Amino acid sequence: MNFLVIHGPNLNLLGTREPDVYGRMTLADIDREIETKAKELCAQVRIVQRSSEGAIVDEIHQAMGWACGIVINPAAYTHYSIAIRDALVAVAIPAVEVHLTNIHSREPFRRTSVISDVVQGVIAGLGSKGYAYALEFLSGLGV
Amino acid sequence: MNFLVIHGPNLNLLGTREPDVYGRMTLADIDREIETKAKELCAQVRIVQRSSEGAIVDEIHQAMGWACGIVINPAAYTHYSIAIRDALVAVAIPAVEVHLTNIHSREPFRRTSVISDVVQGVIAGLGSKGYAYALEFLSGLGV
Amino acid sequence: MNFLVIHGPNLNLLGTREPDVYGRMTLADIDREIETKAKELCAQVRIVQRSSEGAIVDEIHQAMGWACGIVINPAAYTHYSIAIRDALVAVAIPAVEVHLTNIHSREPFRRTSVISDVVQGVIAGLGSKGYAYALEFLSGLGV
Amino acid sequence: MNFLVIHGPNLNLLGTREPDVYGRMTLADIDREIETKAKELCAQVRIVQRSSEGAIVDEIHQAMGWACGIVINPAAYTHYSIAIRDALVAVAIPAVEVHLTNIHSREPFRRTSVISDVVQGVIAGLGSKGYAYALEFLSGLGV
Amino acid sequence: MNFLVIHGPNLNLLGTREPDVYGRMTLADIDREIETKAKELCAQVRIVQRSSEGAIVDEIHQAMGWACGIVINPAAYTHYSIAIRDALVAVAIPAVEVHLTNIHSREPFRRTSVISDVVQGVIAGLGSKGYAYALEFLSGLGV
Amino acid sequence: MNFLVIHGPNLNLLGTREPDVYGRMTLADIDREIETKAKELCAQVRIVQRSSEGAIVDEIHQAMGWACGIVINPAAYTHYSIAIRDALVAVAIPAVEVHLTNIHSREPFRRTSVISDVVQGVIAGLGSKGYAYALEFLSGLGV
Amino acid sequence: MNFLVIHGPNLNLLGTREPDVYGRMTLADIDREIETKAKELCAQVRIVQRSSEGAIVDEIHQAMGWACGIVINPAAYTHYSIAIRDALVAVAIPAVEVHLTNIHSREPFRRTSVISDVVQGVIAGLGSKGYAYALEFLSGLGV
Amino acid sequence: MNFLVIHGPNLNLLGTREPDVYGRMTLADIDREIETKAKELCAQVRIVQRSSEGAIVDEIHQAMGWACGIVINPAAYTHYSIAIRDALVAVAIPAVEVHLTNIHSREPFRRTSVISDVVQGVIAGLGSKGYAYALEFLSGLGV
Amino acid sequence: MNFLVIHGPNLNLLGTREPDVYGRMTLADIDREIETKAKELCAQVRIVQRSSEGAIVDEIHQAMGWACGIVINPAAYTHYSIAIRDALVAVAIPAVEVHLTNIHSREPFRRTSVISDVVQGVIAGLGSKGYAYALEFLSGLGV
Amino acid sequence: MNFLVIHGPNLNLLGTREPDVYGRMTLADIDREIETKAKELCAQVRIVQRSSEGAIVDEIHQAMGWACGIVINPAAYTHYSIAIRDALVAVAIPAVEVHLTNIHSREPFRRTSVISDVVQGVIAGLGSKGYAYALEFLSGLGV
Amino acid sequence: MNFLVIHGPNLNLLGTREPDVYGRMTLADIDREIETKAKELCAQVRIVQRSSEGAIVDEIHQAMGWACGIVINPAAYTHYSIAIRDALVAVAIPAVEVHLTNIHSREPFRRTSVISDVVQGVIAGLGSKGYAYALEFLSGLGV
Amino acid sequence: MNFLVIHGPNLNLLGTREPDVYGRMTLADIDREIETKAKELCAQVRIVQRSSEGAIVDEIHQAMGWACGIVINPAAYTHYSIAIRDALVAVAIPAVEVHLTNIHSREPFRRTSVISDVVQGVIAGLGSKGYAYALEFLSGLGV
Repeated sequence: MNFLVIHGPNLNLLGTREPDVYGRMTLADIDREIETKAKELCAQVRIVQRSSEGAIVDEIHQAMGWACGIVINPAAYTHYSIAIRDALVAVAIPAVEVHLTNIHSREPFRRTSVISDVVQGVIAGLGSKGYAYALEFLSGLGV
Repeated sequence: MNFLVIHGPNLNLLGTREPDVYGRMTLADIDREIETKAKELCAQVRIVQRSSEGAIVDEIHQAMGWACGIVINPAAYTHYSIAIRDALVAVAIPAVEVHLTNIHSREPFRRTSVISDVVQGVIAGLGSKGYAYALEFLSGLGV
Repeated sequence: MNFLVIHGPNLNLLGTREPDVYGRMTLADIDREIETKAKELCAQVRIVQRSSEGAIVDEIHQAMGWACGIVINPAAYTHYSIAIRDALVAVAIPAVEVHLTNIHSREPFRRTSVISDVVQGVIAGLGSKGYAYALEFLSGLGV
Repeated sequence: MNFLVIHGPNLNLLGTREPDVYGRMTLADIDREIETKAKELCAQVRIVQRSSEGAIVDEIHQAMGWACGIVINPAAYTHYSIAIRDALVAVAIPAVEVHLTNIHSREPFRRTSVISDVVQGVIAGLGSKGYAYALEFLSGLGV
Repeated sequence: MNFLVIHGPNLNLLGTREPDVYGRMTLADIDREIETKAKELCAQVRIVQRSSEGAIVDEIHQAMGWACGIVINPAAYTHYSIAIRDALVAVAIPAVEVHLTNIHSREPFRRTSVISDVVQGVIAGLGSKGYAYALEFLSGLGV
Repeated sequence: MNFLVIHGPNLNLLGTREPDVYGRMTLADIDREIETKAKELCAQVRIVQRSSEGAIVDEIHQAMGWACGIVINPAAYTHYSIAIRDALVAVAIPAVEVHLTNIHSREPFRRTSVISDVVQGVIAGLGSKGYAYALEFLSGLGV
Repeated sequence: MNFLVIHGPNLNLLGTREPDVYGRMTLADIDREIETKAKELCAQVRIVQRSSEGAIVDEIHQAMGWACGIVINPAAYTHYSIAIRDALVAVAIPAVEVHLTNIHSREPFRRTSVISDVVQGVIAGLGSKGYAYALEFLSGLGV
Repeated sequence: MNFLVIHGPNLNLLGTREPDVYGRMTLADIDREIETKAKELCAQVRIVQRSSEGAIVDEIHQAMGWACGIVINPAAYTHYSIAIRDALVAVAIPAVEVHLTNIHSREPFRRTSVISDVVQGVIAGLGSKGYAYALEFLSGLGV
Repeated sequence: MNFLVIHGPNLNLLGTREPDVYGRMTLADIDREIETKAKELCAQVRIVQRSSEGAIVDEIHQAMGWACGIVINPAAYTHYSIAIRDALVAVAIPAVEVHLTNIHSREPFRRTSVISDVVQGVIAGLGSKGYAYALEFLSGLGV
Repeated sequence: MNFLVIHGPNLNLLGTREPDVYGRMTLADIDREIETKAKELCAQVRIVQRSSEGAIVDEIHQAMGWACGIVINPAAYTHYSIAIRDALVAVAIPAVEVHLTNIHSREPFRRTSVISDVVQGVIAGLGSKGYAYALEFLSGLGV
Repeated sequence: MNFLVIHGPNLNLLGTREPDVYGRMTLADIDREIETKAKELCAQVRIVQRSSEGAIVDEIHQAMGWACGIVINPAAYTHYSIAIRDALVAVAIPAVEVHLTNIHSREPFRRTSVISDVVQGVIAGLGSKGYAYALEFLSGLGV
Repeated sequence: MNFLVIHGPNLNLLGTREPDVYGRMTLADIDREIETKAKELCAQVRIVQRSSEGAIVDEIHQAMGWACGIVINPAAYTHYSIAIRDALVAVAIPAVEVHLTNIHSREPFRRTSVISDVVQGVIAGLGSKGYAYALEFLSGLGV
């Protein structure tokens, strides 16, 4: 079983970026956790971080054919990228939206997601654990 | 470690209620999964289902002193029960909000939660797995 | 044929409560009218009045198995009780929403119903006659 | 006792128009039901169907002097015809608004009525029975 | 100098219609006042009352060529008839919008006019005097 | 018969202020027209121009006892001065709101008046004539 | 193949009406273009212009049985005529909505159409060419 | 003179609940202050705390006949319980709404009260003193 | 202990202004009550009434140094004077907002206060008693 | 004559992407149709598909100097890309916005276009024919 | 070259007023900076601070004839004073709006300015430097 | 001292793009002004222009470590790029938002900025001078 994990813009700064909001873990730390979980599930995982909306769209397109699940943290694009939304619908691969923080207890605009209604499920506020749970859930779908 | 799991109104009809939306699992099936997970985590769990808002408020109050985490699926009350919200804030016990279905892909009013911004995190659309992930996350907090 | 008739909160005060708005009939008077109509239709009717949202949800659940129609005047809960709405959808019994007064010519908030779109029909402003018409309509469905 | 029954625009196509929404009855079938009910109530009834807002206004005006009740299904005009609303207020004849379908479970714009707050009552979703109940209610007012 | 005066729907019932809102004058009384004022201004006036939006549009069109001013009380159509608005713009004849009552102190929807921003001016709440002032103003434009 | 005429802020600049919007007449020209009209009506008129909201409130208060009508062009205060609104209600003297320009065809915020629903009537867009019509109307009330 | 082309209110004034917005072509010029296109497509076309909403509803009804496509420029009615919308849905004939001007670059209220979501497609801003393209598209459906 | 004092949901946790928001006084402390005030006014007072909306409705109903004033802190129910609002209107006993904290300087949703417009007055932000002032005011009404 | 009491615009007309809304007490009557209360509290009180927003701002500024509490009835300015709001914040003296009437049961715009979230508390609808309670509360803060 | 045709994000998946919404034609099929039409018009056409908003902006910039018309299907960017809007305004080349599907009958957010008011015209719902009509229209402008 | 600098209400308390928001500089300090800058530009500057909206309007009027630029910090009046807005438009002197703090990162209502769209430019959040930059910019316009 | 200056999309067309809105200066002209100012401040400046949102995010990230201030004109992205907003917050470098034109006097959507509340300050409408003032302000922070 193969999965694609996509980190959106600014997540590459994790650890240095607003540590009181996002914690001290770096993206590398999180990716290690994801890979550990993937191994535990006997799954392959491709992990990418992209700043550009178009690049995320392209990554989603390229998942067609090999990935049986997508875990996506669209970060800022969560709130307005209909292009990413359309890409997820177009490829028709089961997906889970993950947010490190509880987007509901931050600025009001973070409560609006244009992605949530086209994915299978949403996990927010569980930190890096959210990725692991998403992988586990998607791997269960494949059975 | 002890946890409280609260199921809100109408969840007692699971399995018979709108099976195309909520699936064929009964609440008893879900509770068995929760207990299995609790055992795996070496934790005690009290599971209740309540139709009444006031009764849910009372359950939350009574968790003070023994519970170190609350998993709550407020069902319909998600969208308007400020009483439940206030109860969660008042007892100051870490909590996770769980929804069986993806509330974002249903009626628009289901996208509004008055609970989400006072809990640690939210899981929606992962079916009965959501409860297990919530317990696992909360047990990690206690370490 | 069996029917459940539910009166929501504050309807027990009919006759004394704001008589210029609600008239001089008491709830007992209305219930007698309902029973007369039921007899006329050769139907059994269970009539309850409840102040609590949770208790109304429970009554709806318990109608499963024996009732082939529900007549409900949700009173104040009309405007916000998604729990009652969900209960009506969950039991999948045909229902009619009845209001004694014309809710459209009162305070603006009374024009919003969270129940109306999940019932078969709505009758407002026809006084106690609304219950009789609702029963008659539901009995016609059963034919 | 005399009554005016007004069918608004497009109701002349009943039976052929969207049968899954409006059913297979034609307007002639409904008119027969109305006349049967009128006879039962020892009442005279004038039934008209009009496509034009101005023509409906004129019909309402002409009811002054002979009609003691108006049953109106304003169809599309429900949602914006303040001219019809004003006409109903101007003639000060008791009126009931009837809709064949449950307008609350269709497109959102159908939930807004500019007529409802100036009539005695509203019946929606009870099919052709709605007209009969409205006549019966209005005839009761005249006693 | 020639003027067109248009009375919208339901104004034909003036005197009988809601006398506490609109007073006891009939439309004939008002028309006499208008004609008196016209004579005083040495002007010709054509006065029409129409229930139908389309008929009002037609009257406005036919004013092209002979009328140098239009006084219009669009009544209910004030609030939604973009067709009448477009007609007034299309013929490009100076116009004044008149309301017998103060539309600002009635139902909120009466405060919205789709006509006001395409006419020269608006007079509301001055009763039948509003027509006279409008004629006088328009006749002054022609000098 | 005595009247108070109040010009709000910035009207003292008429003639120089945005002449394409407000025309070339100065406030002195307008006041002469008002006085001419007052004479014609055998009435006394006190005309004031005030920049300050509080000063306008005071002028309205001082009209109690001697004025039988107020003509007010609240200018910018039209759109937010509830203090002026309250003053007009408090003194209970019949009043007419006048605007030189058609406030409906300018910036959207000019369409909102907090004054209109507490005066007898409103005249907008008829230029300096509006004051004369208002005086004439108010003098008619006194008969 | 037969088509119905409907021009809404005020379009009869084309050429004289606001030529800077609508251009110098008359409706007769446009109708000639439509007939030329129809001939090119070996199709029959009935072209009508109506001021009244009810008359447009009637025309749409009468198209049942002979027309296999409707081209409609509802003009002002675009923005509020649910009666025309309902008529188009009721007859279930493929239709295209055409606007001579780009309604999106004019007043904000022109961006709202109550018709667009029940037709096959919409063409705006392409001038008289819009009708030809609509006919061509509809004739292609019939193949 | 007899009064009913109602504390809404979560107020039983006062002293432990968010002490930086609600202070260190317990509900027992507040009740002692209320009783002291009642004695000072030579009045009897019944004090209840309820978590359930229905139970509060019932308490209000039971006040009919003996209470000449109600002091109510609806807590969370302030913002949505139309059932409690309707109960207060139905029993027609003078009432004062009290909030310990200044609800206007907290979350925006706390600024909306569905109760305020049916009580005599509202006191917010004066801590436990609010109850005493409310009792004193209500006792003055009875004179 | 010294206090400043500020009455906003139009309160000088109390007793004559809308007596059915505001009662028959004059401002002098109220000021006597306030002084009596102040004496009872062994406090000095300066009472001012101002029509002008700027003058109220100046009074608040001048309270710095001598006043340990401000009781303010901003009247009409409640709803829009951010200048008064800013002044209260700037001087950082504890303040209570008082309204004679229950602003929640009057026009909708009276429910919006731009002052409430920067004062200690709010009292509305308790008539002249509101001032006394406010003084008493503020004097308690000083202890 | 030269034209630029731009396909926005996700259109590269046409044929595979939601075929019930977008049909079975691939983008290559559509491009062939466009080229055929271009030949018929004796025009050159450059066709590009881009996922990235910035890349679309760049393509529009590079059209300056050689293109006399732009046909753009902005896909998801239709609804939020002010950058593309600004680019179209900046280059001042006549443009037509094309959508394969009728965006008005899909999700509500698809009815909002930030592009429409800066192009010449809009075609929606006519499938691949929309491109041809747009080219034809633009070639007519050049005459 | 002559300039007018206007400080709005409450700015006289700078240095003492909320120093964590506005800093420790007094208005006198700022005025010294402004005068230094004016000298550097070989310009004369008149600096005033006013609490009253009417007084600010008057100052703006009096600038006609001598001032070739206005620097205005309308403080609280920024958000609602259409009177000041109208005054700035009326005198037609180039103006720059200055705010000491970044009004966009404070309360939401501070993001709305009724002044900004009638001035040349806006500077916010640059502290006292904003005045200097505004003067420099305006002096450049005069060249 | 080192600074980063970022120009957003379409600014590369300055001079040719809508010269009546943006003036005749090219971006090269502006960059020369910026460099002159930088020299005057003894500062280094890196100036970039980017069409792509992702590329702007990347530039902001790369400023970490060397830049002590960012001057950003986000152009179209001002209104929706939460990705750029998040990047600015993440790097925590003081920034100033600059707009050449007065965005408040253009289309309404240009008044919304998702960037303004996370920068130090905003300058709009001062043309190319805005960049110089921003640099000067930021260099002052570094002292």
